[in-house]
Amino acid sequence: MRKHISGFSNPTVKYLRSLREKKLRKRAGQFLVEGLRLLEDARVSGYVPRTLVMAEGRDPHPLIEGLEREVAGAGGEVITTTPDILSKITGKSNAQSVVGVFDEFDTSLGAVDRSGAKIWLVAQDLRDPGNLGTMLRTGDAVGAGGLILIDDCADPFSAEAVRASMGALFTQKLARARWDDFVPWLRGGETRGGSGQLVAASLRDAVPYRGADYQAPCFIMVGNESQGLPEAYEAECDLRVTMPMKGRADSLNAAVAGAVLAYEVLDKLDA
Amino acid sequence: MRKHISGFSNPTVKYLRSLREKKLRKRAGQFLVEGLRLLEDARVSGYVPRTLVMAEGRDPHPLIEGLEREVAGAGGEVITTTPDILSKITGKSNAQSVVGVFDEFDTSLGAVDRSGAKIWLVAQDLRDPGNLGTMLRTGDAVGAGGLILIDDCADPFSAEAVRASMGALFTQKLARARWDDFVPWLRGGETRGGSGQLVAASLRDAVPYRGADYQAPCFIMVGNESQGLPEAYEAECDLRVTMPMKGRADSLNAAVAGAVLAYEVLDKLDA
Repeated sequence: MRKHISGFSNPTVKYLRSLREKKLRKRAGQFLVEGLRLLEDARVSGYVPRTLVMAEGRDPHPLIEGLEREVAGAGGEVITTTPDILSKITGKSNAQSVVGVFDEFDTSLGAVDRSGAKIWLVAQDLRDPGNLGTMLRTGDAVGAGGLILIDDCADPFSAEAVRASMGALFTQKLARARWDDFVPWLRGGETRGGSGQLVAASLRDAVPYRGADYQAPCFIMVGNESQGLPEAYEAECDLRVTMPMKGRADSLNAAVAGAVLAYEVLDKLDA
Repeated sequence: MRKHISGFSNPTVKYLRSLREKKLRKRAGQFLVEGLRLLEDARVSGYVPRTLVMAEGRDPHPLIEGLEREVAGAGGEVITTTPDILSKITGKSNAQSVVGVFDEFDTSLGAVDRSGAKIWLVAQDLRDPGNLGTMLRTGDAVGAGGLILIDDCADPFSAEAVRASMGALFTQKLARARWDDFVPWLRGGETRGGSGQLVAASLRDAVPYRGADYQAPCFIMVGNESQGLPEAYEAECDLRVTMPMKGRADSLNAAVAGAVLAYEVLDKLDA
């Protein structure tokens, strides 16, 4: 189905705009992906938008035409509109010329198959959507299975998180859980002779991160940007590791800490 | 000197607000640092604000009182104002209760003493101020000497970069240069038997980053968030290294790539 929208007050425009707001996005169960590059990343990973919104007057592009066919073939809707209305939808003055609407994924812990990868990333109370998206991107790079969001993290379906993930939102499994549900799930698993090793970067009772005894499946956990991990959460970890801190600061950016640790774990588990 | 400002149209308020804009900040040669934590980081590193602006009615705090004395002692100005006016200055609805005004640093390449550290970070066309601040923070953590900004990078004195640096803006040497000035400077140095090794994360003609032959002073360079490094810049590097990319993506976030590489270099040069 294909239609053209020329009015700012069109209900579809209002609906699409509403997806920029976390609460309304959650209620709708859908999110926006902006730009051809991310939409192509999604398509290659097997995700086709429910709705595709394109600015009229854009230059023809074979990838957009291909997307259009896929959306139509899957029973989705293709909408053309003015650049101004597309800007209104995305809230950006120079909007990307194409936007896709996707259904949110199943982010239940039960849908995570931990035996599918040697590395999993875990973030607790991570508030910055850019950090969250960056962790997804790092997870893709190290061959992690996915990212598990504990407690009150940023929304992984926000435009900023989607953009920072650089398409990894579509390659990484994403789960959301409270700590009190995560720990029993972690300890209840029985794969490859173990339920999973929980590792945190920590200053308390920690061993050097280089050459530590990492075991697959290895769950690498980072904490909140300001507070770090709660002490009780660190105590639950099977391994606490520390990275050299040569300067005045006593911590790294959360996404950076996760990445430095993940590359170290990759080196050990891949050997 | 101490004064109270109660009017929104006060010229000092207008001046302080103007420091949020890159162009006006550059013209003034001053920048804002928001919040007691960052101001305390600055103070410990030997930097005292020219002007200290505090919201009236804040709770007394020994650190703020100490700062106030230092500012006054250095001939600076202490201003009290309303929380509303402070919010107007910072552009944030719930402003930190204290803001400091600092003179921008000398960021000329000539002021960099490369023999002072084994590691230096270099960013080329890095556009995201959060990434820039994060690289400063990482530099502090690995004991780098500082960050050299090549070509058109984000402004290191923007509020976002200052905040992301978590105080490392005051511990790391900061320099800005065009590529055509940086290369002769790099090659012209004569310290510890060498001018410095330029290393880039690259996909072209690269060796694995683990265990590569890093040499001090090692200059670790990352490129623009979208484009990476220009080919000619990579060709100038003494060493091109590559990190495993197990997923669909072919690159990491720029600040993450710099950090993973910097920790590897630290391990080799510190051994």
